[in-house]
Amino acid sequence: MEPIRSRAIPPRTGDEVSPLDKRIIEHLQQDGRRPFTQIAAELGVSEAAVRARTSRLIERGILQIVGVTDPLKLGFHQMAMVGVRCDGDKLIEAAEQIAELPEVSYAVITAGPYDVLVEAVCEDNEALLSFLADRLRHIPGVRDTEAFVYLRIVKETYQWGTR
Amino acid sequence: MEPIRSRAIPPRTGDEVSPLDKRIIEHLQQDGRRPFTQIAAELGVSEAAVRARTSRLIERGILQIVGVTDPLKLGFHQMAMVGVRCDGDKLIEAAEQIAELPEVSYAVITAGPYDVLVEAVCEDNEALLSFLADRLRHIPGVRDTEAFVYLRIVKETYQWGTR
Amino acid sequence: MEPIRSRAIPPRTGDEVSPLDKRIIEHLQQDGRRPFTQIAAELGVSEAAVRARTSRLIERGILQIVGVTDPLKLGFHQMAMVGVRCDGDKLIEAAEQIAELPEVSYAVITAGPYDVLVEAVCEDNEALLSFLADRLRHIPGVRDTEAFVYLRIVKETYQWGTR
Amino acid sequence: MEPIRSRAIPPRTGDEVSPLDKRIIEHLQQDGRRPFTQIAAELGVSEAAVRARTSRLIERGILQIVGVTDPLKLGFHQMAMVGVRCDGDKLIEAAEQIAELPEVSYAVITAGPYDVLVEAVCEDNEALLSFLADRLRHIPGVRDTEAFVYLRIVKETYQWGTR
Amino acid sequence: MEPIRSRAIPPRTGDEVSPLDKRIIEHLQQDGRRPFTQIAAELGVSEAAVRARTSRLIERGILQIVGVTDPLKLGFHQMAMVGVRCDGDKLIEAAEQIAELPEVSYAVITAGPYDVLVEAVCEDNEALLSFLADRLRHIPGVRDTEAFVYLRIVKETYQWGTR
Amino acid sequence: MEPIRSRAIPPRTGDEVSPLDKRIIEHLQQDGRRPFTQIAAELGVSEAAVRARTSRLIERGILQIVGVTDPLKLGFHQMAMVGVRCDGDKLIEAAEQIAELPEVSYAVITAGPYDVLVEAVCEDNEALLSFLADRLRHIPGVRDTEAFVYLRIVKETYQWGTR
Amino acid sequence: MEPIRSRAIPPRTGDEVSPLDKRIIEHLQQDGRRPFTQIAAELGVSEAAVRARTSRLIERGILQIVGVTDPLKLGFHQMAMVGVRCDGDKLIEAAEQIAELPEVSYAVITAGPYDVLVEAVCEDNEALLSFLADRLRHIPGVRDTEAFVYLRIVKETYQWGTR
Amino acid sequence: MEPIRSRAIPPRTGDEVSPLDKRIIEHLQQDGRRPFTQIAAELGVSEAAVRARTSRLIERGILQIVGVTDPLKLGFHQMAMVGVRCDGDKLIEAAEQIAELPEVSYAVITAGPYDVLVEAVCEDNEALLSFLADRLRHIPGVRDTEAFVYLRIVKETYQWGTR
Repeated sequence: MEPIRSRAIPPRTGDEVSPLDKRIIEHLQQDGRRPFTQIAAELGVSEAAVRARTSRLIERGILQIVGVTDPLKLGFHQMAMVGVRCDGDKLIEAAEQIAELPEVSYAVITAGPYDVLVEAVCEDNEALLSFLADRLRHIPGVRDTEAFVYLRIVKETYQWGTR
Repeated sequence: MEPIRSRAIPPRTGDEVSPLDKRIIEHLQQDGRRPFTQIAAELGVSEAAVRARTSRLIERGILQIVGVTDPLKLGFHQMAMVGVRCDGDKLIEAAEQIAELPEVSYAVITAGPYDVLVEAVCEDNEALLSFLADRLRHIPGVRDTEAFVYLRIVKETYQWGTR
Repeated sequence: MEPIRSRAIPPRTGDEVSPLDKRIIEHLQQDGRRPFTQIAAELGVSEAAVRARTSRLIERGILQIVGVTDPLKLGFHQMAMVGVRCDGDKLIEAAEQIAELPEVSYAVITAGPYDVLVEAVCEDNEALLSFLADRLRHIPGVRDTEAFVYLRIVKETYQWGTR
Repeated sequence: MEPIRSRAIPPRTGDEVSPLDKRIIEHLQQDGRRPFTQIAAELGVSEAAVRARTSRLIERGILQIVGVTDPLKLGFHQMAMVGVRCDGDKLIEAAEQIAELPEVSYAVITAGPYDVLVEAVCEDNEALLSFLADRLRHIPGVRDTEAFVYLRIVKETYQWGTR
Repeated sequence: MEPIRSRAIPPRTGDEVSPLDKRIIEHLQQDGRRPFTQIAAELGVSEAAVRARTSRLIERGILQIVGVTDPLKLGFHQMAMVGVRCDGDKLIEAAEQIAELPEVSYAVITAGPYDVLVEAVCEDNEALLSFLADRLRHIPGVRDTEAFVYLRIVKETYQWGTR
Repeated sequence: MEPIRSRAIPPRTGDEVSPLDKRIIEHLQQDGRRPFTQIAAELGVSEAAVRARTSRLIERGILQIVGVTDPLKLGFHQMAMVGVRCDGDKLIEAAEQIAELPEVSYAVITAGPYDVLVEAVCEDNEALLSFLADRLRHIPGVRDTEAFVYLRIVKETYQWGTR
Repeated sequence: MEPIRSRAIPPRTGDEVSPLDKRIIEHLQQDGRRPFTQIAAELGVSEAAVRARTSRLIERGILQIVGVTDPLKLGFHQMAMVGVRCDGDKLIEAAEQIAELPEVSYAVITAGPYDVLVEAVCEDNEALLSFLADRLRHIPGVRDTEAFVYLRIVKETYQWGTR
Repeated sequence: MEPIRSRAIPPRTGDEVSPLDKRIIEHLQQDGRRPFTQIAAELGVSEAAVRARTSRLIERGILQIVGVTDPLKLGFHQMAMVGVRCDGDKLIEAAEQIAELPEVSYAVITAGPYDVLVEAVCEDNEALLSFLADRLRHIPGVRDTEAFVYLRIVKETYQWGTR
């Protein structure tokens, strides 16, 4: 008989974000360039503390502060979520190659009818077709694709996991 | 006979982002808090120019600089893309109510088999069930839902439309 | 026991299109305004015969001569085939109301998973959404819709049934 | 880092169709052979202007004037929209070969569950089977097909994009 | 705790069909009007035995001898298998009403995505549409239908269970 | 340009079944062994006429008189309709091989999501599995199968096309 | 702005199962009635220790020792997994009522196309139909059901989580 | 012509479970280690009778007494039912190899859209992905998989066939 296995669960790190950390994150979610002096004043701590904690949150990979652009304003008028089905044994390799395509802003392996969900950002329908037919479907292991064209983005927030 | 209509197409604004604007955006995509003096030095322009152009890009809605957090690091271990089908005549109203749910980080109306695609960020399976059964499916006009649980996020970039 | 029924099949009219009729149709498929004198000369018959036969083909509904426009050239950049499913007992009524919507260029009742296939011609994604959400799905008896956005039209011929 | 790209959008030509052009198109949509003198009289312009503008609309590909036949009246009793799924990397090549089959009146590459939607016009069920099994499915890259048989055409207009 | 139930299985009657019965059935499957004297001679039994056993097989519902007609030869050119989905609690009632429609030659309740599979025999596409839209879908409890039009019948045998 | 083709439609033979023929068919649908003398007496014609017309209907393939057995009464307890999808170019060959399997009572090529619908009559679940896994799916060109197990046969009539 | 929430994760109890506990579980998985003296001898501990640890594992809900019966041997010949879809806002209530039906051995709420997966154990096809049509589909909130009939159980182990 | 076959049905053994057997089973379903003396006293029979009948039920494969563990309590937090589709001719071989994977607690071949339904018990999403991508989909003959992640187990009983 096989020996019983039970998995050593690593300590979860989520709880280690202190209440003060969270207040700082909230400020930076509102404005990524808000001066540390202003945040420090509002939270009643020193600027050095805000600066140090922010650096530490970034180092630990909990926070990043980034410039996010609006694709529509830059001439990318056709976006789609693309459901991809892969050949049996090529799932992870294919997903990694998909992620390298420049039109792909987002790629996630999912349980369910699609193996990979891919968000593509394209200029227009011809560019979307070119992405699908000339690039995505030429990746080894990609069997078929089904694109859900975006009609309107209703919500998009960069504050995941902090509500 | 109906009169011929043809639509007055508004001028597209995408082209108005100058090459210098784009170089500034690239810097801020790498680090949202990079000092303007450093960007100015690298691009060979004045700090005032960088500051002014950045402000203008933000005002025009082309750019935002935000703190983005990693849900896994904050204790949110179960994410899913949820395909939602709505009753015939309630699509837009339902999509707007869905967008107000706190678990929803992303909601988009699509052409295709799902009326709305919704990304949900939850602590665990029970929280995902609670989101689906107690909140999402109680919104008037939501007929059924199908959740694609995330197994692994392979790519996630905040640089849409600027590749 | 029910009496045996067998259906009186009406004589099919397809065979009544004479070889000369077909030659005339071929000319008009190439150019709907080709002068009858030119067609007559090429076919070795009188202009009166060409004119009379053309009129008769039009009267019988076999032929129409129409101006056909290219939607893309007139600013309509988003087309889709929309599969519509209707409530049980409202199929034909719904199909007829769908046909009256101005965005609809084509509507056909089909056997299969969709009750009605509808071609819609729209300016852009917002107009397509408005067509789907504000008009199509408000027609009584329309239960749900699934849009297949056109990426490229590969063939389009107005010569049905005469190949 | 990749340089930022933004696409030079070509000027849209839709707006260049003048109001007078549109009035002429409307006349020709009603009757493709309406004499230019009659159109000129109704619009209050010279026959030469109508003739010149019509020629120009045809040259620019905005308008064509064609004889359109009714397949049912010519003995073609079975029509179907056929959803085609292609092998990963053969989509465009397959679509182009499909378009060359004589039974195909219409072929469009779509986003969604079917790669290509194809309208086929056939004499009867045996001819439709022969089209599907002996021709369409022998094209390299065609993986499977699903035919939606037409039960009734409810609307068919040749006035796309001019409503 | 609930008491244990176990089901009293009725004795199966299949085994009670004797080898002689089966030989008689085989003869009648080939020609339903073959004279009993001929069958008796070939099987080496009396005509009375063949007659008596045939009557008994018919009485027991094991055999029926019927005239079967070819729908195509009688002017019924469009047949379809129709998958029917019913409202939750109306399955059996709906199936029984479906069975009473004259176009229905066959109706079976199945496990799987369709609640009832229905074979319909119709003159042409308009008659099939009328069957679907005006009769089948007006039966209370019928929610939606999906017709698989027959292209060619490849095999049809009336010898079920006796191969 | 391709020459116009139009198909010579063969005269339909359905109308050639006379009213007397139909009355005879009705009698034989009720009881395939009803004596011709009895039918003749009820219809007011000679026995020779009934006999001759019946022979002629059988020769023309319009009618067959057959013994039909009830599979359940012969120990075949598990029936299923099986939807079969075939590889692109093997549809008709596969369908013909399927038709030769002894468990298959019915096979039809259809338009729609399944290429071939197959009715199988089996003793029990193990026999159905053996049919699917060991025979049906080993036929070259059969790609996948989906079985709809019968729960109850609600209607089964052998009087197609004569209602 | 909403305050940042992060979830207090309860300590996971899985790790608290000691290696000795696991060895005891392994013995009882092989034979639920194995005498504690025998287990104690093989593991080199006292019978009292085995008895006490077993009681504690049962109290904590980690282990149960039960008689499991084979449905086929008790006359239940038709089993199915049933995918259930529920009305929007009745998911959990419906699942709980489903769980009370005696034919149901297993019920689980899932992400994906089915809201609830239900294993049903029935005597035969008529009993399965009765379960589906007369009981399952009469539960308020059950919209439709799709049964996957079992053809063969290939593996069934009661040793979850201890492999 | 093929000879008529009819299947020799083996005597069903379900009825051979006596009422006393069933009462004993009921006791052991409640507690698999209940002392035989206690059961004997409650049922008014000798301990030897209870012991002998229990042994006989186990020998005949009708009953097994096993330790069943709760996967959640042992650190296995992600379970899923996985629908597997196999290549045409590899169904049974693939199912048997699937059954050997340690994550698989249950595997059943079904009629319907999935060839095999597999229950997998995994520690977390990464382990589920590894199971799907690295093991399940590398089994020869497995074509694609679709996982339905468990959100909540509502019912789980080990008393199949004895309700």
